[in-house]
Amino acid sequence: MGKRIQEHRQNRAAAVMREAGVDVLLLCPGADLLYFTGFEHGHAGERLLALVLRRDGSSHWIVPAMNVPQVQRVLLPGQTIRGWDDAEWYVPALSEAIAGAGTIAFDDDARAGFAMDLLALAPQARLVRASSVTRGIRIRKDKWELDRLRDAGRTVDETIPEAIGFCRPGVRESDVDRELRAALLRRSPESSVAFTIIASGPNSALPHHETADRVLEEGDVVVVDYGTRRQDYLSDVTVTCSVGAPRDAEVEYVYSVVREAQQTAIEAVRPGVTTGEVDRAARDVIERAGYGPHFMHRTGHGLGVQGHEPPFIVPGGTELLEEGMVFSIEPGIYLPGRFGVRLEMIVAVTKGGVDLVNAPSADRMPRSA
Amino acid sequence: MGKRIQEHRQNRAAAVMREAGVDVLLLCPGADLLYFTGFEHGHAGERLLALVLRRDGSSHWIVPAMNVPQVQRVLLPGQTIRGWDDAEWYVPALSEAIAGAGTIAFDDDARAGFAMDLLALAPQARLVRASSVTRGIRIRKDKWELDRLRDAGRTVDETIPEAIGFCRPGVRESDVDRELRAALLRRSPESSVAFTIIASGPNSALPHHETADRVLEEGDVVVVDYGTRRQDYLSDVTVTCSVGAPRDAEVEYVYSVVREAQQTAIEAVRPGVTTGEVDRAARDVIERAGYGPHFMHRTGHGLGVQGHEPPFIVPGGTELLEEGMVFSIEPGIYLPGRFGVRLEMIVAVTKGGVDLVNAPSADRMPRSA
Repeated sequence: MGKRIQEHRQNRAAAVMREAGVDVLLLCPGADLLYFTGFEHGHAGERLLALVLRRDGSSHWIVPAMNVPQVQRVLLPGQTIRGWDDAEWYVPALSEAIAGAGTIAFDDDARAGFAMDLLALAPQARLVRASSVTRGIRIRKDKWELDRLRDAGRTVDETIPEAIGFCRPGVRESDVDRELRAALLRRSPESSVAFTIIASGPNSALPHHETADRVLEEGDVVVVDYGTRRQDYLSDVTVTCSVGAPRDAEVEYVYSVVREAQQTAIEAVRPGVTTGEVDRAARDVIERAGYGPHFMHRTGHGLGVQGHEPPFIVPGGTELLEEGMVFSIEPGIYLPGRFGVRLEMIVAVTKGGVDLVNAPSADRMPRSA
Repeated sequence: MGKRIQEHRQNRAAAVMREAGVDVLLLCPGADLLYFTGFEHGHAGERLLALVLRRDGSSHWIVPAMNVPQVQRVLLPGQTIRGWDDAEWYVPALSEAIAGAGTIAFDDDARAGFAMDLLALAPQARLVRASSVTRGIRIRKDKWELDRLRDAGRTVDETIPEAIGFCRPGVRESDVDRELRAALLRRSPESSVAFTIIASGPNSALPHHETADRVLEEGDVVVVDYGTRRQDYLSDVTVTCSVGAPRDAEVEYVYSVVREAQQTAIEAVRPGVTTGEVDRAARDVIERAGYGPHFMHRTGHGLGVQGHEPPFIVPGGTELLEEGMVFSIEPGIYLPGRFGVRLEMIVAVTKGGVDLVNAPSADRMPRSA
């Protein structure tokens, strides 16, 4: 991400702060900080590292001494670094940063301990979520971002045939995971940032199963949910396949219901529609088929520099879709102890309706052999 | 971890709450929750999952619908689950949990967004760090815990010769990482929870280097910092070796200074001494040798179910050591652009002084070939 983009984004945040009456915005390593500065760091923890942005657009960084060289690479002209070491600890730097502030916006995803430090340092101040500033900026993707999301989407789409092929009888879920990660890495070196859920047989009925050592058998259903990253932007796809012909006679019918639910939800997407209406479109199809109680999660989530971000496509959701919003459509049906089917792809809201960010799910359930 | 241990620990927390005037304690997936309940979950995120413990010792769980089966496995007699789904979202359950509470202790390591939800739901309540309740309990390890920490320590100690052997000319840091993880897994299946930092050549001068693709060369210094887990308890060790004979003439002298600093700090450990005095003991040796500015981090950190936990062995630290505290002693000297040396092992404070939890660092710098 270039420094001009960073500068533009930080200026937008300061403008929102002035409108919202926020004096200081503090962002720690995570999705907001990556979006506004290009900075990320894997060791984020009990040592405070933060961008401090003020409503006049001026800003500085609070940085542990050992991370100063890393932050210098993303520093904008005029920005300074307030370093601290383990002897001083971060509290004095945090106290300076919020001196005189009436309203402080703090990173939603950072450690709660830091938020409680702010309460102790400024008991009179109002503490609000950083997302009250950042959400409206991040939720609408511009063309530059859409291009990156499409690149990431293409990377996962290209590996779908391989992903299905890895689901052979006799291999473990963890083997499929390892082969899939290697396949993603061959296509993009940024795929070291990848996630996967491989859920086979009865495990496929658990929406958030963690990949385990179960051995795949002929006839199993396998839910393969994965994503990777291109130039800071993420992809997310779920395919459901069977190892050879499915063992359970209901599998292919359930697949067709989920596929129709997904298609119906996609067709409901356009500016001015609520997130709840999109969720309803998918849920109606599943309820009419008699599987309502077996679709127990939301229909989708936003996608950008973060894997799960607004908007959330939830039952009763009242948020209005706007041009540039990007989110998953991922209905599922889970029959406990038997199998589950989930199909996920990503869409973007356009002026006229909807655009696909990655390829639509297969019409019929693919088989690995 | 057995349910009797969970029950005992939760009763201790309730007793501390009564002393400290805390009405409700909320713990989310992370080290505190693992310590008090044995529960852990990799997908902790924007969906609230929490143990709610009240000062009278009664408790319940707030759990996303899809995680209910996982929590059922750790449920104590009398505990209930308040499930919620994406349609309802977690806010009503959170609101019920804190109804009427004057002082709420919230998990330091959970998302700040949840803490800000609490501020919005209970603007009159006092919000404090969960660690104000949990810290004093977790910081002193009992015999059962010390046994587990020694098991974990033995696992990393046994792999040290292999770890050094992996540092061959021509391999990448990421290759050493992969081989080391495999070696840990061969010794303990729980080693899927492992961390490593492999920092070679000039990268060794960066204390928190992230393992990269640099190719090791003859004469390089390599800092190998790693740990793994046995029965929920962690180990953490750092060895520094050279690939054949070290290229830089100062390497072996710097190693001897760091080794002496570590030994001197270990000898300073006993009940009643401050954390600052232990730090000082290590720092004095390094300063006297003229490398003071090149030791820019703390001397150590506590270790238990969490990799970095109290007590912290920091300059000026005033916390008094007590029997049962377990922490690392890990001085280092980092010469920018050239090399770094860090040596880490774990000690426990005993009634009479100090016990080693894993083996002391080698007297002289080991060579991989």
